[in-house]
Amino acid sequence: MHSKQELEEVHKRILPYIHITPVLQSGLLNKISGADLYFKCENFQRMGAFKMRGATNAILQLSKEQQQKGVVTHSSGNFAQALSLAAKSLGVPAYIVMPSTAPQVKKDAVKTYGGKITECAPNLKDREETAEKIMRETGAAFLHPSNNTNVILGQGTAAMELLKEHQDLDFMVTPVGGGGLVAGTALAAHFFGNNCQTIGAEPFEVDDAYRSLKSGKIETNKTTDTIGDGLKTQLGDKNFPIIQKYVSEIIRVEEAEIIEALKLIWERMKIVIEPSSATALAAVLRENEKFRNKKIGIIISGGNVDLSNLPF
Amino acid sequence: MHSKQELEEVHKRILPYIHITPVLQSGLLNKISGADLYFKCENFQRMGAFKMRGATNAILQLSKEQQQKGVVTHSSGNFAQALSLAAKSLGVPAYIVMPSTAPQVKKDAVKTYGGKITECAPNLKDREETAEKIMRETGAAFLHPSNNTNVILGQGTAAMELLKEHQDLDFMVTPVGGGGLVAGTALAAHFFGNNCQTIGAEPFEVDDAYRSLKSGKIETNKTTDTIGDGLKTQLGDKNFPIIQKYVSEIIRVEEAEIIEALKLIWERMKIVIEPSSATALAAVLRENEKFRNKKIGIIISGGNVDLSNLPF
Repeated sequence: MHSKQELEEVHKRILPYIHITPVLQSGLLNKISGADLYFKCENFQRMGAFKMRGATNAILQLSKEQQQKGVVTHSSGNFAQALSLAAKSLGVPAYIVMPSTAPQVKKDAVKTYGGKITECAPNLKDREETAEKIMRETGAAFLHPSNNTNVILGQGTAAMELLKEHQDLDFMVTPVGGGGLVAGTALAAHFFGNNCQTIGAEPFEVDDAYRSLKSGKIETNKTTDTIGDGLKTQLGDKNFPIIQKYVSEIIRVEEAEIIEALKLIWERMKIVIEPSSATALAAVLRENEKFRNKKIGIIISGGNVDLSNLPF
Repeated sequence: MHSKQELEEVHKRILPYIHITPVLQSGLLNKISGADLYFKCENFQRMGAFKMRGATNAILQLSKEQQQKGVVTHSSGNFAQALSLAAKSLGVPAYIVMPSTAPQVKKDAVKTYGGKITECAPNLKDREETAEKIMRETGAAFLHPSNNTNVILGQGTAAMELLKEHQDLDFMVTPVGGGGLVAGTALAAHFFGNNCQTIGAEPFEVDDAYRSLKSGKIETNKTTDTIGDGLKTQLGDKNFPIIQKYVSEIIRVEEAEIIEALKLIWERMKIVIEPSSATALAAVLRENEKFRNKKIGIIISGGNVDLSNLPF
């Protein structure tokens, strides 16, 4: 249902509004892992995360008339910021539903990017009702952070850029949260790779994607006690079929392994990445026999951290 | 006494052993500063700091016979690591005198790079005596971290690379510690810039370079209570005349301003830099009227931080 050309078109469409992010290597991390690692640094993306790609594509795929009415989402994370900035760049109103309990620093970031915040009670029911009320009143289009085909295709362009630079990658490894990044990456690996397998990395503490692939239906998390705060969400009906078809495996990692990988990347590569992003390297280090002497693309998903709340 | 060609030769000599580091820009930091900032990222240099350049040049300028006997320095900071790694790359023994009180993490880093550590009491007299004893016993050559002409010229190659990429910089701003970086940068700005002024940035808490330029003689610090732990040393007779001749000004900054600049670079540019490096941006922000609408090269001197001891 998707194609190489479709991804090319998405990339061309969003290119004026995003950065082509750098690919970094580290001799020391290659040595530690026993593999050849290519880090695609979406922490250097506009607003600090890959979400900028999907948000931009999703808005651009709306009709001009719909764009004038605006877009709405409920998120307290990077997608809220990404949708706000993408909408601002395109002159489109963005309505962001955030729980009243969201940290002030996240509300401030959304405001900086021009998003109009409506607060709601911190539960799914109130979140959805508030979003629906905004849609009725403004005619804004709802855009889901990860379970939206145009968002998924946008996220896939990071891996596509990486594979165009390094065509012979054996694996592509990404964190798994709501499933948009891993699904888009798997499509890109399928269309642009040369037998490149896509692997998802997920904390044991929120291993819904791992369990979903085992059971064949979308599973949820009863608790979400992980440092990877971008990974607490579950898969959706748009991305799950893609993940089932194109993702070869989900590797689960311990919290201590995420923190260790985070520290390695900060200390050795000298780049600021968020804890969620470190799950991918953690998975490669945990299963290092599997990856020995292989060429591996690692998507560094983002770099938005709260410096006053670090795990070191 | 120095020349453009001399710096070119130094660069050519060390090139096989160093990285040509990237130059980054940040739209947001340009907006905040009202200037056009070009960050030369020596935090991505081998072993994580510009010191790699000077150490490599200084070893390469020794005779083959002298190289076989080895090199010695006393340092607990980046130069100890740089000399160890440069020596290792060149097959030269490196003897590092470190105070017994130096943090274990710094001793471990030197060992990782192959340096042979001799511990001494934590005072200048014992440090110098220990180094002299090693020189007598091994015939190793003493290399000072900052007051050595070959070290100074090596450090200047970072600014030289930056000026070759961006020839029209109005200012070059670097942190000032022992004076090697600012002196080498000033030479590079003189030979490769187009009326490019070099400015040093120094914490008020260790403003010996500021006072030295005022008094015309090398001043010392009675206390060194700064977060910029690479900036506690004083100028020397090799670099001071260069600084007097080619550095136009030293701007002093408060500790809070250093921490604010550090936070801005980590959060906005998503790169890990050490506190000493943040003094340069802090100086530009403090004196922002002076720098408004100017093109400014900022040397990010290093990225070696202790993540368990951050000021946020």
